[in-house]
Amino acid sequence: MKRTHLFIVGIYFLSSCRAEEGLNFPTYDGKDRVVSLSEKNFKQVLKKYDLLCLYYHEPVSSDKVAQKQFQLKEIVLELVAQVLEHKAIGFVMVDAKKEAKLAKKLGFDEEGSLYILKGDRTIEFDGEFAADVLVEFLLDLIEDPVEIISSKLEVQAFERIEDYIKLIGFFKSEDSEYYKAFEEAAEHFQPYIKFFATFDKGVAKKLSLKMNEVDFYEPFMDEPIAIPNKPYTEEELVEFVKEHQRPTLRRLRPEEMFETWEDDLNGIHIVAFAEKSDPDGYEFLEILKQVARDNTDNPDLSILWIDPDDFPLLVAYWEKTFKIDLFRPQIGVVNVTDADSVWMEIPDDDDLPTAEELEDWIEDVLSGKINTEDDDDDEDDDDDDNSDEENNDSDDDDDE
Amino acid sequence: MKRTHLFIVGIYFLSSCRAEEGLNFPTYDGKDRVVSLSEKNFKQVLKKYDLLCLYYHEPVSSDKVAQKQFQLKEIVLELVAQVLEHKAIGFVMVDAKKEAKLAKKLGFDEEGSLYILKGDRTIEFDGEFAADVLVEFLLDLIEDPVEIISSKLEVQAFERIEDYIKLIGFFKSEDSEYYKAFEEAAEHFQPYIKFFATFDKGVAKKLSLKMNEVDFYEPFMDEPIAIPNKPYTEEELVEFVKEHQRPTLRRLRPEEMFETWEDDLNGIHIVAFAEKSDPDGYEFLEILKQVARDNTDNPDLSILWIDPDDFPLLVAYWEKTFKIDLFRPQIGVVNVTDADSVWMEIPDDDDLPTAEELEDWIEDVLSGKINTEDDDDDEDDDDDDNSDEENNDSDDDDDE
Repeated sequence: MKRTHLFIVGIYFLSSCRAEEGLNFPTYDGKDRVVSLSEKNFKQVLKKYDLLCLYYHEPVSSDKVAQKQFQLKEIVLELVAQVLEHKAIGFVMVDAKKEAKLAKKLGFDEEGSLYILKGDRTIEFDGEFAADVLVEFLLDLIEDPVEIISSKLEVQAFERIEDYIKLIGFFKSEDSEYYKAFEEAAEHFQPYIKFFATFDKGVAKKLSLKMNEVDFYEPFMDEPIAIPNKPYTEEELVEFVKEHQRPTLRRLRPEEMFETWEDDLNGIHIVAFAEKSDPDGYEFLEILKQVARDNTDNPDLSILWIDPDDFPLLVAYWEKTFKIDLFRPQIGVVNVTDADSVWMEIPDDDDLPTAEELEDWIEDVLSGKINTEDDDDDEDDDDDDNSDEENNDSDDDDDE
Repeated sequence: MKRTHLFIVGIYFLSSCRAEEGLNFPTYDGKDRVVSLSEKNFKQVLKKYDLLCLYYHEPVSSDKVAQKQFQLKEIVLELVAQVLEHKAIGFVMVDAKKEAKLAKKLGFDEEGSLYILKGDRTIEFDGEFAADVLVEFLLDLIEDPVEIISSKLEVQAFERIEDYIKLIGFFKSEDSEYYKAFEEAAEHFQPYIKFFATFDKGVAKKLSLKMNEVDFYEPFMDEPIAIPNKPYTEEELVEFVKEHQRPTLRRLRPEEMFETWEDDLNGIHIVAFAEKSDPDGYEFLEILKQVARDNTDNPDLSILWIDPDDFPLLVAYWEKTFKIDLFRPQIGVVNVTDADSVWMEIPDDDDLPTAEELEDWIEDVLSGKINTEDDDDDEDDDDDDNSDEENNDSDDDDDE
C-alpha cells in the first residue's frame, strides 16, 4: 500500500515548486493514518476522536482491478486524514467479512459506503469521492450545528442563502430548553440542511418570528412555513423536516449527488442545466424559480437544477449522454435506470421559454405525454458518435 | 507511461458502480491523446484545433521524483484531453531542450508552464494544476469572448457579478466596427476579465450607457468608470484595462491563484479570509467591500479575499502556516517570500471590526507600523505545534 501512496499523491502538489510561499498544496508525507477497525480497538479509537470516518468495504479480493480501486479509495482517505490531522477526526477501514459482527452492531448495510460517526449519530456520505469534497464535508460537520444570527448584516446573509433548506428559530437564550431541542434536531440533518437561531428581538422582528417559533424555508421560496404548534420537541422538528425534505426545486451538490440522484420520482428526474454565473443561465434559473414558486404545493414535482460549473468533469459526459449543448440552458426528463432522456426544444438562448411555457411542458411530463420512451429508436446506441449523420427522421416507431 | 495511467485514473471513477445512470464520472480509457510537439508536426497539429494546450517541460531527467511529477502532469492532461475530446482542443508536450527552437519561436520562457494557443494569442494557465480546474478554464476559453445582454433579467445577472473585473459596451449592432474592436480587446483578457455588450436601447438606458461607450467595473464597486474618449480602438481598450487591472479588493481563484499571488505589493499581501456562505463571513466581506469602496483611489492597496470554501485542501495548511482559525473571519499581512504573517486581533466573531477600525489597521500596515518582522521570535519555528503554550508575551525584540 505504501508504494501506491508515494506514487500517486504527487497529484496534489504539482504546483508547489515556486519561489513564493503561502499557497502550497499538501503533499502526502507517507505516514499511514487510516487504521483497520476491529472489535478490539473500536472503543479505544472511538474515544480518541470527535468524528470517526469509516470506510466500510468488501474483503479485498485477488482481482487486480478491485484491488486498485480499493487502494485508490485508501489514498484519498489518507490524504484527507493528513490534511485534517489536527482536527480530531479519525479515519478507519471496516472489512465487511472480517468484522461482520462489528458492522452489524454499527448498522452498516451497504458495502463500499463511507460512514461518519458523530456522538451517537451515523451519517452516510453519498457524494463525489474526491479529497476536496470530502474535506469540505467533514469541516462542515465539525462546525456548530446551529449558526446564530445576531445582526442586520447577518440577517441579510441568511436571506441570501436560497439554495439550501434552512430553518430559523427564535429563542430566549442558549439555555432555553426549546433551543436545546432545536439544536438536537439540527444534528440530525447536518450538514445538508442549515439551522439558524437568534436570541435577538430585533432580528426576530425583522423575520416575523415569535418566541420559540421555528420557520422552515424551502429552497428558492421567499416565504417560510411557520412550523405549527410551538414550542416543539426535538422529535416534532425532525418529523416536520423529514416530511418536507424534498423541495420543488433543488440544486445538485457534489457532497450528496448520488443520494439526490437516487431520490427520483417514479424512475425519472426533471433536470434543468443552468450556469448561474452566465446571464442566460441566470435568467433561466429565475424562470425556474418562478415555476417552482407557482407549483410548490405539487408533491409530484421536484426539479433538479444542475449548475455545470459545479461539475466540470461531467460536462462532456452529460453532453454526450444526453445529446445536448451545455453552453446553453436546458431542461429535460431523464430516466435514471438507463439515462435515456428527452429535452425541451429551446431554439435560441435569447428567447428562453416563459414560466407559462415551462409549466405546460412540465405538465406534459407529469402526465406522461412527454416521456423518454417515445423516441427510443434514436437512443438505443450510445456509442454512435457520428453526430454529423442526421437520423432524427427515422419513421418506424417499433416501441409501441 | 501507460501503466501509470491505468493505475491512477481510477481516482476519477470511484463512484461509478451504481444502479442508476446519469452521474458517471469519466474513466480514463487508456488512449494516448497528448502528443509530443516538434517543428515537423507543429503546423499540422495547430491547424487541427481551435485551441492548443501546450505543456512546456524541462527534459525528462533520470531522477525518479522528477519523472513521477512529470508523469502525473501527463495524466492530468490525458484525462482533460479525454473529457474534452469532442471540443476541438489539442494537447501537446513541448520538450524545452529537444524543441528549444520551437519554444523560442512560440515565446515560451518558463519551464513547467502550461500555455494555450488560441488564434494568434498565447495564454498562460497559472492556476491549480487539477483536472477539474483545467477543464473549466478551457471551457471558458472556447466560449464567445463577449456575452450579449438583451433583457432585464440579464441586466440583473450582469449586476450580480461583483467579484470579477467586468466591462460592458453599447453598440449599434454586431457589425459595428467599434463592437469588433471591443470583441478583439476582450480576447486579450479571456477568461479572466468578463466582457459584455448590448445592442438594446432599453438595456443601455438602464445602465446609463451612451452609444459606443464602454464602462469599466472594478470588482465590488457599485459605480463603473466610463472609459474616456469614445469611440475606442482595440489598443486603447487593452491599455485602459491593463492600467486598471489590479483592484482594491480581489478574490483569489483556483484558475489563476499563482499569478495573483505573484502580483504582490512590495513583497506582501493583505489577505482576508471570509466564507461567503457563512453569516459571519458574509458580514466581514460586506465590511471589506465598504473599506475597498472608500479607498478605491489608493494604488497601494489591494486586499486579497480568500473564501476557504474555494480551497478545501489548503484550509488546514493555511491554519498551520498562519496560526489562525479559519472557521472565523481573519485579516492579516503575509510576506510572500517566507509566508511569515501578522493577523488582526478579532476577539469575537460576533463583534467584527467596523470599517473604520479596519481602515486604521490597514493604514498601519501600509505605513509599516504593522509588519511581519516584529514578532519573528515567535515565528521562526513552524513545526512547533504546542499551541497550548502561551508565548505571546516574550519580551526580547531582537529584530530591530
